[in-house]
Amino acid sequence: MQNIDTLIHGRWVIPVTQGDPVLNHHSIAIHDGRIVEILPTAEAGFRFNAQIENHCISHALIPGLINAHTHAAMSLFRGMADDLPLMDWLSNHIWPAETRWMSEEFVHDGTELAMAEMLRSGTTCFNDMYFFPDTTARLARKAGMRACVGLIVLDFPTIWAGNADEYIEKALQLRDQYRSDALIRTPFAPHAPYTVSDAPLEKLRMLSDEMDLPVHMHVHETAHEVDEAVKKSGLRPLQRLANLGLVSPNLLAVHMTQLNDDDIALLARTGAHVVHCPESNLKLASGYCPVQKLLDAGVNVALGTDGSASNNDLNMLGEMHTAALIGKCVAGNAAAINASQVLRMATLNGARALNLDTVTGSLEKNKFADIVAIDFSALEMQPVYHPVSHLVYSAGREQVTDVWVAGKHLLKDRALTTLDEQKILQKVRTWNEKIAE
Amino acid sequence: MQNIDTLIHGRWVIPVTQGDPVLNHHSIAIHDGRIVEILPTAEAGFRFNAQIENHCISHALIPGLINAHTHAAMSLFRGMADDLPLMDWLSNHIWPAETRWMSEEFVHDGTELAMAEMLRSGTTCFNDMYFFPDTTARLARKAGMRACVGLIVLDFPTIWAGNADEYIEKALQLRDQYRSDALIRTPFAPHAPYTVSDAPLEKLRMLSDEMDLPVHMHVHETAHEVDEAVKKSGLRPLQRLANLGLVSPNLLAVHMTQLNDDDIALLARTGAHVVHCPESNLKLASGYCPVQKLLDAGVNVALGTDGSASNNDLNMLGEMHTAALIGKCVAGNAAAINASQVLRMATLNGARALNLDTVTGSLEKNKFADIVAIDFSALEMQPVYHPVSHLVYSAGREQVTDVWVAGKHLLKDRALTTLDEQKILQKVRTWNEKIAE
Repeated sequence: MQNIDTLIHGRWVIPVTQGDPVLNHHSIAIHDGRIVEILPTAEAGFRFNAQIENHCISHALIPGLINAHTHAAMSLFRGMADDLPLMDWLSNHIWPAETRWMSEEFVHDGTELAMAEMLRSGTTCFNDMYFFPDTTARLARKAGMRACVGLIVLDFPTIWAGNADEYIEKALQLRDQYRSDALIRTPFAPHAPYTVSDAPLEKLRMLSDEMDLPVHMHVHETAHEVDEAVKKSGLRPLQRLANLGLVSPNLLAVHMTQLNDDDIALLARTGAHVVHCPESNLKLASGYCPVQKLLDAGVNVALGTDGSASNNDLNMLGEMHTAALIGKCVAGNAAAINASQVLRMATLNGARALNLDTVTGSLEKNKFADIVAIDFSALEMQPVYHPVSHLVYSAGREQVTDVWVAGKHLLKDRALTTLDEQKILQKVRTWNEKIAE
Repeated sequence: MQNIDTLIHGRWVIPVTQGDPVLNHHSIAIHDGRIVEILPTAEAGFRFNAQIENHCISHALIPGLINAHTHAAMSLFRGMADDLPLMDWLSNHIWPAETRWMSEEFVHDGTELAMAEMLRSGTTCFNDMYFFPDTTARLARKAGMRACVGLIVLDFPTIWAGNADEYIEKALQLRDQYRSDALIRTPFAPHAPYTVSDAPLEKLRMLSDEMDLPVHMHVHETAHEVDEAVKKSGLRPLQRLANLGLVSPNLLAVHMTQLNDDDIALLARTGAHVVHCPESNLKLASGYCPVQKLLDAGVNVALGTDGSASNNDLNMLGEMHTAALIGKCVAGNAAAINASQVLRMATLNGARALNLDTVTGSLEKNKFADIVAIDFSALEMQPVYHPVSHLVYSAGREQVTDVWVAGKHLLKDRALTTLDEQKILQKVRTWNEKIAE
């Protein structure tokens, strides 16, 4: 008998490993935050003596979901300006609101709201891009969530920094502060090709290569962006990034609704990653990311919600649902983007894109125990023929009952253990009143 | 003081009437199943003396959602065969399963599961098309739900009838049985142009005109359907139906993913209704219904989930979300298919299509009290700037707390009052085991 911290018994364990197995009546043994073993429940009691046992008798245990692109604090702008085209939405609503309201306190309260929502819907790791990444990092670590906190870079001054050099200086400080943190990573996050010029991008490319840091960037979000770039420079933005040496396994290119065959070949050849944000792309009428074509070409595609201002939630189960539905119609093939592929996009592919796949993204021995329990007992989930189908096509965020990050039980029967829900709601109400005025 | 049955106090009342008002702190007064008055909560206590008062202090009260196209009993096939093209799905999975399992008991148990799910997600009225409509009608009446029970017609024999004449005979019997029922309506439901020939369609047209009964039919679901028809007859299916006199205000044409400008003009000219089922159309890669074009042409567009075998849920809030998102990208305009329009599609437009708009579909004096309370207190719904946006872009089915149909409280703080959830689950488990074998 081996003494361990925790045993979680699941009706199903869906580890997201080779061959997409669905393990019936299996248990996960956890010690020191890591997975020690996944084995039949019938054997678990003979092998392990656990301090805590969790019986998830009607649940599927899946890897924690990885939200590969979001702006967490923007949750305070949820539903503020809907049904508007991207540039109108940005120029006349979001940017003025950010100018008016942005502060460390805003990021603090918005990020707490976002983390609470993400945990309650099964997300254990988020890749963020926003002001005050130091605050986001601190809050995520405190809450016990895994976070990739984007070191933002822009050409123009904001509340965070005055110019590209200052953004990069602050980035390096933050990267240094968290360089050996177990939960926090610090990718570079230059906003977009149209807001960051060549010089800082070249610098980031050099730093990214040196430090092996991912580069998280909006690319080809709209046709307008691509058209303008071609008009000005004769180059598509992705090609410009490639010329700067940025299209590499370190790049997370977010959105990518405008892709021709050359773009796809370039991504495949270089090993760059795409982060698909279907709900945001649809809501802003930006276009369709050709996910099946990317997968066919061998490109790694992860999944993200984008911020709550353009979604309007941070629910990765909903995003998986939308990705599966729209992916089929875009491919013209109902067999495209099947449920297992979507689950992989929302877990292991996200981990790969963020260079975290030795740490999380699947349920495997020695990886951290980032685990979500999804309850199948509600009548909306019945009957059950194929559990993975239900995760994608039938489950709602309310089916998420428990969440562990690095073995720590952060959501316990739908109650948050490290975040104070009532306090968060109270603060959000104050912001709501101020901003609505 | 007027004595009445019920007062419901809402944080917001969203009646879906002219100008799309959102009424702050309003109450709905109900007597004998109908809405007596909608008035500020501050006045309600002075005007009405209610036997029951419901305080929905953090809720929006909206008209009951109308699922304008479903196959309720197919919930027993939920998730049985996913990620397959339509004809493979139908021919190799759904039709064989129906042949193997169809019985009155199947329809009974499947419909109860479906009704429970629909009530729990805010649907008060469903337009069904399936075998044993007599059973569906009986169950809906017993549960207190509003239902339009499709009088199915096919050319070929099934468990329900041997030939078109027998289908029509059984249809007329059922229509006679329910002709003055307060909750049950009986539209004709010829399956599709490719499964019903001219002679029975002509008969239905005549009967539909005589009795002013809607005709509920799958039309232009796939390009294949249209191509095959054109190859065989030279006519697009919608044109053939028009030649038979069926394209009229009585027609509910479901799916309509393949529409050219002539089709749209024909629908607009004749006053026929379209039932949009975006999730099913996406999941089966059938194509995109051009909803904004239809609305621009003045066509009434309602919303349906289709059956759970191709969705895989009966959640109209989810369908609203998908309709809004995909509608924008199809129109190439983020301002298209806005939240108010989607809410209207899911309520009043459905009532209009089913010839029920004097009875339900909006919250207005003298209409039946078909009402849904959506709780905005969860952090996934915070902050709140525009309640209608949240209904479409942020609410999940779990936000539905209470449902009334004709004033009867069918869902009470998420508990079903007329359906036995545990008994339903038990029966579903038995079916699950049998079918999975």
